[in-house]
Amino acid sequence: MSQAPATSLQDIVAHAKEYGFVFPSSEIYDGLQAVYDYGQNGVELKNNLKNIWWKAMTQLNDNIVGIDAAIFMHPLTWKASGHVDGFSDPMIDNKDSKKRYRADQLLEGKAEQYAADGQPEKAQALLNEMGRLLGDENLEGVRELIIAEGIKCQVSGTANWTEVRQFNLMFSTQVGSVAEDSNLIYLRPETAQGIFVNFLNVQKSGRMKIPFGIAQIGKAFRNEIVARQFTFRMREFEQMEMQFFVRPGTEMEWYEKWRDTRLKFHQAVGLPAAKLKFHDHEKLAFYANAAVDIEYQFPFGFREMEGIHSRTNHDLKSHQEFSKKKQQYFDNDLDENGKPFGNYIPYVVETSVGADRLFLAVFCNAFTKETVGEGDAQKERTVLKLHPALAPFKAAIFPLVKKDGLPEKAEEIVKALRGEFRVFYEERDAIGKRYTRQDLIGTPFCIAVDYQTLEDDTVTIRHRDSMEQERVHISELKAKIGYAVSEQRILELI
Amino acid sequence: MSQAPATSLQDIVAHAKEYGFVFPSSEIYDGLQAVYDYGQNGVELKNNLKNIWWKAMTQLNDNIVGIDAAIFMHPLTWKASGHVDGFSDPMIDNKDSKKRYRADQLLEGKAEQYAADGQPEKAQALLNEMGRLLGDENLEGVRELIIAEGIKCQVSGTANWTEVRQFNLMFSTQVGSVAEDSNLIYLRPETAQGIFVNFLNVQKSGRMKIPFGIAQIGKAFRNEIVARQFTFRMREFEQMEMQFFVRPGTEMEWYEKWRDTRLKFHQAVGLPAAKLKFHDHEKLAFYANAAVDIEYQFPFGFREMEGIHSRTNHDLKSHQEFSKKKQQYFDNDLDENGKPFGNYIPYVVETSVGADRLFLAVFCNAFTKETVGEGDAQKERTVLKLHPALAPFKAAIFPLVKKDGLPEKAEEIVKALRGEFRVFYEERDAIGKRYTRQDLIGTPFCIAVDYQTLEDDTVTIRHRDSMEQERVHISELKAKIGYAVSEQRILELI
Repeated sequence: MSQAPATSLQDIVAHAKEYGFVFPSSEIYDGLQAVYDYGQNGVELKNNLKNIWWKAMTQLNDNIVGIDAAIFMHPLTWKASGHVDGFSDPMIDNKDSKKRYRADQLLEGKAEQYAADGQPEKAQALLNEMGRLLGDENLEGVRELIIAEGIKCQVSGTANWTEVRQFNLMFSTQVGSVAEDSNLIYLRPETAQGIFVNFLNVQKSGRMKIPFGIAQIGKAFRNEIVARQFTFRMREFEQMEMQFFVRPGTEMEWYEKWRDTRLKFHQAVGLPAAKLKFHDHEKLAFYANAAVDIEYQFPFGFREMEGIHSRTNHDLKSHQEFSKKKQQYFDNDLDENGKPFGNYIPYVVETSVGADRLFLAVFCNAFTKETVGEGDAQKERTVLKLHPALAPFKAAIFPLVKKDGLPEKAEEIVKALRGEFRVFYEERDAIGKRYTRQDLIGTPFCIAVDYQTLEDDTVTIRHRDSMEQERVHISELKAKIGYAVSEQRILELI
Repeated sequence: MSQAPATSLQDIVAHAKEYGFVFPSSEIYDGLQAVYDYGQNGVELKNNLKNIWWKAMTQLNDNIVGIDAAIFMHPLTWKASGHVDGFSDPMIDNKDSKKRYRADQLLEGKAEQYAADGQPEKAQALLNEMGRLLGDENLEGVRELIIAEGIKCQVSGTANWTEVRQFNLMFSTQVGSVAEDSNLIYLRPETAQGIFVNFLNVQKSGRMKIPFGIAQIGKAFRNEIVARQFTFRMREFEQMEMQFFVRPGTEMEWYEKWRDTRLKFHQAVGLPAAKLKFHDHEKLAFYANAAVDIEYQFPFGFREMEGIHSRTNHDLKSHQEFSKKKQQYFDNDLDENGKPFGNYIPYVVETSVGADRLFLAVFCNAFTKETVGEGDAQKERTVLKLHPALAPFKAAIFPLVKKDGLPEKAEEIVKALRGEFRVFYEERDAIGKRYTRQDLIGTPFCIAVDYQTLEDDTVTIRHRDSMEQERVHISELKAKIGYAVSEQRILELI
């Protein structure tokens, strides 16, 4: 077999739609920008990834538990977290085309142009100047810089710009009835704060001892102006986050531990080491003392899939200030002088992965176009080489023909296996076509029932990746396939 | 053992909070009304219920697949579904107290009073009149009826009422940047429409043949004015819905089949038959031809947990009209004249269960206060008698003492088991206390490691419900507990 060169995002999007992995949201109404629905195969793949992450966190570690906080939170949460005041992008409109741009991206574009024209110093100077001006309360300087640099709207071709305004990325809504107790609340822009506000509830009710972690999977929402690259940047997305609470001074060892553990996770679900890399943050948030991204090589380049951040005690301290409720932990372990460490606000190491990004990475990596066979039998095929534990269906069962009791025999096998894992049954069309259809959705095993099966209770197993076939007794199927498709095989590697 | 009489909702709420099942949302900010967070034990119980529902639908049935549609949908979806125009409650404000009421509930309260005073005919007449007036475009008649009946605000004591207005229960938000392409969108008030708009995508990409179903688990949002009874009626909640698409004319047989199957499901997860009942709808929605609720006996009475509805082709037909895209299926099965049934808009039988209500039912049912022991050893205990497959932890492992190598031996057992299921480890406090703590969160098995374990590799298993203990070899643990806690034991019953 020979593998074709890298596939385009366009191929990925088309395959995802045609085979029931990802559909544009509300497609019959011509879709909703930057929102997607998971189809019948996509939801299984995504759920399998979520389950494995959840187990890797809350089942493999004695000291990590989960929670599921609501999307709606008290609005003060977002004041304390800094999102109300600081979670915004600087926007500018062209008055002629009415088109809106991110002011910083216009300037970055110009800097890239300078760099491409062999003027790297000029590029750097522009970026520095931009950074300085974006820090100002009044963004008039940013507007002046855009005009001074001669930046024009790509639609109208004019430099007829409005002022620059900060545009908050949080979605808001009104809760309660309009007359009396109406309140502006936000759709959470991240899941992490649901963990922080529940820190003491979990610690006390679960008698947790530091170090310990709280994990969560859930939806978050951001009103992204420039949402693109398929499910990579969506307005509604799902995060898998774990906040690990530690004694101040021990955070760097945990940061390193989690950075390495999380990389192992991505390799365990099948992403090759060569397509993964660490990217240390050059600029840290003012409260952070270390931050790294795990990037995956998507068809559009290396991009962030997960972030590991040492956030100090910033979030808990801020919630303590805004809520007037102590966010402290009493540590009765003994220090070097034999005294308890006592009360402190814990430090936090966060691991935060986008479930949709992980899905997209795994899907892109599995998507394979290859040439198989020799001579006249040579042909192209498309196959999703998913880890068997991640595949939407674990096995497909086919009677060779639709008569002579073969369908009934196949149905017996379906019944015997489907309590254990998800199986597919099909009796239409030639068996070669049926194999092809299973390749397209990543089913690792196809089981064919033929006339010999009626005699000796043996079937053919056809392997997706090697396309090899072997004859096994029906009684062996459950154990043989069950082991190959079990989550444990992934969990053991983490 | 003797069981105490029915427990109050208050006891349930307190236990849920104290032992990490359900916390008030954003509690450090004094909470957010009618929104709750699932704690470290609650999330496991809820996930276990969701997983079993999901498998019961998409793994046990060849012809049911899942999807996961976004919460954000194109706004026309809600025009087509009728929610924009019709999903509202009639509200009235008292001008003195500024308190807002549901107009229909004020009148229902009055009718109840009549009935309690031995005037059932008067009560019925009032309800009839109210029903007639609520159908009017102009709700002035409803206001007049409230005044004529002398209904007063319970806060101000006056009848100084505003007009009656329809208040839509959907939450709305703005998507896109404010200047140019801003759009009002809604948080979905039900998950069903995500299935309907994807009907053809799933049917075609999955080559589904009628009859087939599409299942979905997901959040929905309703701006309930009177939200109460803990997690029973929340503003943010989770639904588990399955829409089953059938040939017109066959819907009643499927309706009956699903009604019975869904009842079996609730019994399989441990809810007793005596606490479950069917409640046929007296009034059907104009498009429905059959509807029944499965009610559970909560501490506050029998209430709807799940609805099974025969919705005809109403939803797909409406989406066809609004989207101008045919929502048809070509049925090539043959009718009695040997001709294909041909093109039609399928009929739909829906099963819709509230995940939070199912959680609450299972939690209430498991919550047990009982007297155990004899004579001087008699004592009260609280225990969560959850089905072992639903319990947050499947087993707890305790070294008898924290020395002499017992913790190390116990850790070996933890390591051997935790790849298979979720286990808890604890070495603090007397073993009796540790048993008690596991009873409170429903752990079915406690494994004690003692000095004899070091000699012969046997441990004690203590059973949660019977409190009986048995001695078994470590090598037997995985199989013995693994079988007892497996989801298959529930799935086999459905």
